[in-house]
Amino acid sequence: MTLRTYPRFVTLEGGEGAGKSTVLKALREVLDATGREVVSTREPGGTPLAEQIRGLLLDTHHEPPTIDTELLLMFAARAQHVRETILPALERGAWVISDRFTDASFAYQGAARGGDPSFIAELERRVVGIAPAMTLLLDVPVAIGLQRARGRGASDRIEGERDDFFERVREGYLARAGADAQRFRVIDATQTVEAVAAEAVAHLRRLIEAAP
Amino acid sequence: MTLRTYPRFVTLEGGEGAGKSTVLKALREVLDATGREVVSTREPGGTPLAEQIRGLLLDTHHEPPTIDTELLLMFAARAQHVRETILPALERGAWVISDRFTDASFAYQGAARGGDPSFIAELERRVVGIAPAMTLLLDVPVAIGLQRARGRGASDRIEGERDDFFERVREGYLARAGADAQRFRVIDATQTVEAVAAEAVAHLRRLIEAAP
Repeated sequence: MTLRTYPRFVTLEGGEGAGKSTVLKALREVLDATGREVVSTREPGGTPLAEQIRGLLLDTHHEPPTIDTELLLMFAARAQHVRETILPALERGAWVISDRFTDASFAYQGAARGGDPSFIAELERRVVGIAPAMTLLLDVPVAIGLQRARGRGASDRIEGERDDFFERVREGYLARAGADAQRFRVIDATQTVEAVAAEAVAHLRRLIEAAP
Repeated sequence: MTLRTYPRFVTLEGGEGAGKSTVLKALREVLDATGREVVSTREPGGTPLAEQIRGLLLDTHHEPPTIDTELLLMFAARAQHVRETILPALERGAWVISDRFTDASFAYQGAARGGDPSFIAELERRVVGIAPAMTLLLDVPVAIGLQRARGRGASDRIEGERDDFFERVREGYLARAGADAQRFRVIDATQTVEAVAAEAVAHLRRLIEAAP
C-alpha cells in the first residue's frame, strides 16, 4: 500500500523557534483569498481526543513515556486527526494546512529519539495513508532556534530536551527533505520572519496555480 | 524476533461479567503465600501515564477513537506498562499477574472491531516482546456475562457496546486459546465464583510447582 498524495494538502515542519506560527498565518491569508474552504490544524492534535493525547505527550505530571509509547501516542493522535479532520476536509475540496505531520515523527521519534524508521514508515502506511503535496521545512541552526523559542518562556516536555536532541531533529528533517526533493521546500529560517513568510507564500502560490 | 516467555508472568482474560476480580484476589493470596514479591496489575493501565491513557480509552467526553486510534492507544499504554512495571518486576524475580494483556487486543481491537491481526501481532513483537507463561481465560456466554456486568451499574465506553460486539470478543478469545493450548487454560465461568476461583487456583499451583 502506498500513500495517497492530496494536491491541496500542505504541511509545515521545523524545529523550535523556526517561525512556524508567523508563516502559518501568512499562508492562511493566501489560501483564504482563493475562495475555497481552508482548514488549518496542528499536530499532535487537531481533534478533541487528539488534543487530549497531545496533553499526555507534552505534560510532565506523570513518568516520561518510553520511546515506543511516545511513538504510538503520536500515531494514535495522527490516525484520529487524519480520519476525523484532515481527510473529510480534503474530500470536500478544502485546503488543509497542518503545523507538523508525519515527517515530525521521523525527525523527533526517529532521528532524535532513535526509533526504528522502518517501524515509523509502517505506521505511516498502516494508519496514516496520505501525504501532503508540499512540505515547507523551516530550517534554522539549533542555537538560533532555541534562543528564540526559550525567549518565549515556559517550555513543555519536548521543548525541555537538550541541544543535541534538537541537532538530531534538524538532521532528521534535512535528511527527509534531501530524500524527497519533489515534495519538500527548505526555507532558510535565519532570515527575518517577513522574508521567511514571503518565501513560503511564493512556494504556496505555485502550488495553488498547479492545483486542479 | 519472537516473544520472550516469563515463567512467573500470569495473565487473566475474559469478557464482561466473567468474574475476573474475584479470581484475581484468590490468585493473589496463593502467590503471596509463596513468599515472593507479587505485583498485580491491570490493562489498560498499570503506570500513572498508562492509567491516563486508559482514561482516554474509556471515557465518552470526546469523539470516539477510530479503530486504529484505539489500537495504538492500547499498545502505547501496554508498551509503557511492560517497560515501567511488568519487566522490572519480572527481572527482579517477582510474580506478575495482569488483569488483561495482549490477548485482549486480539479479542477486542481485532476480532470484535475488525483490526488486522497481522498488524496487532507486529505491534506485539515490536513494542511488547514478552508473553505470560499461563493465561487463564474465564469463558462465559455473553448473555450471562452482560447480565452480571450490567447489574454493577454505570458502564464505560467499551462496556456500552452492543451484544454482537461481545460475541465477537468471546469468539476471538476462544480462537486464541484454541491456537495456543499450551499457554491457555479455559475456565467455564458459568460456575459459581467459588468454583471458578478454585479451578484458577489449581492451575496456578501447578505453575508454581513448575516455576524455577
